[in-house]
Amino acid sequence: MSTKGNMTRNKLMDIAERRILQKGFSATSIEDIITEAGISKGGFFYHFEGKDDLAYALMQRYREQDAFLFSGLFRRAEELLDDPLQQMLLFIKLLAEMMDQLEDLHPGCLVASFTYESHEVNDQVKAITADSVMDWRQLFSDQLNKVHQHYPPKLDVNTTDLADLLSTVIEGGIVVSRAIGDKKLLVRQLLEYRNYIRLLYEA
Amino acid sequence: MSTKGNMTRNKLMDIAERRILQKGFSATSIEDIITEAGISKGGFFYHFEGKDDLAYALMQRYREQDAFLFSGLFRRAEELLDDPLQQMLLFIKLLAEMMDQLEDLHPGCLVASFTYESHEVNDQVKAITADSVMDWRQLFSDQLNKVHQHYPPKLDVNTTDLADLLSTVIEGGIVVSRAIGDKKLLVRQLLEYRNYIRLLYEA
Repeated sequence: MSTKGNMTRNKLMDIAERRILQKGFSATSIEDIITEAGISKGGFFYHFEGKDDLAYALMQRYREQDAFLFSGLFRRAEELLDDPLQQMLLFIKLLAEMMDQLEDLHPGCLVASFTYESHEVNDQVKAITADSVMDWRQLFSDQLNKVHQHYPPKLDVNTTDLADLLSTVIEGGIVVSRAIGDKKLLVRQLLEYRNYIRLLYEA
Repeated sequence: MSTKGNMTRNKLMDIAERRILQKGFSATSIEDIITEAGISKGGFFYHFEGKDDLAYALMQRYREQDAFLFSGLFRRAEELLDDPLQQMLLFIKLLAEMMDQLEDLHPGCLVASFTYESHEVNDQVKAITADSVMDWRQLFSDQLNKVHQHYPPKLDVNTTDLADLLSTVIEGGIVVSRAIGDKKLLVRQLLEYRNYIRLLYEA
């Protein structure tokens, strides 16, 4: 695809993503997206077969962005520190710092949008949404497994549940911070997760 | 209102709530609700001024049900145990057990539905949604404050953030469990929260 075509596609996706996170998937119409983008309906259908195809592309991009973000932070932690526990603690701190730099409330997560409108999205979109969550589990538990091998935990835990807890804290922290309009809540919740990991594994 | 009137009102609310949690607020039409309920449009408008009024009534009921549920579990824990920390740990266990008894995935939380369609609900609905979350903070931190006064925490924490973490784990646990279709995930995540409280306060 030409650079211009790519730019249009990305622009449509950016507009759609913002609208979905604020209004939900159902209330986001192709009409509204193309009006805001200033392109024709034909232009939209050149890039996407319809709303389901758009939703799939959005989740695919979201998944790739998250993988890029999380692996980047893990790589940075590995560059700076040798100990797997300290790397994990630094990873959470770097993630919290990134959230702290957001000027406004976290815009929301597409996983939650599609999950809370599960009867409105098709099976492919549901499947890739689940895959995104499983990617997080894999990424987080890869690091937690290294920690687990080096340090005996103070309580009987497994690294899959601990990995899921980080996804849970991110998803829940976004809901709670948006619901009460407290933009620093997500950061504070990530640091509570970090406390838990410290208490579990630190000597 | 007559008992029959109340029954109709409750029936409309039950249908609306289930649909909102599955399809979102926008995609839930008055038309669909009255068709499923088998009543006339006039019947609907006898009970509610419109969709915003319905959304407000749903959140009001949800808030009352949650307060009733959480206070009931705290009272039960107080009946059974004297120590504030053990009461808190029992409360979380009883809550987790209740979630464990759900036959299917947790149906979802209206707070998350309305938050993820914040541009589709009016200011009154947004306000009562925030109030619900603040109620949880109050309820959970009341108990956590008693714990905090008796036991020195192992790390520097405040009970507001710890209270919010329970709301975060519930909200996030619902999103993650629904996203990957794992109905026991929410229970396991609640038990991770319980582990954290144990590690923080147990001698």
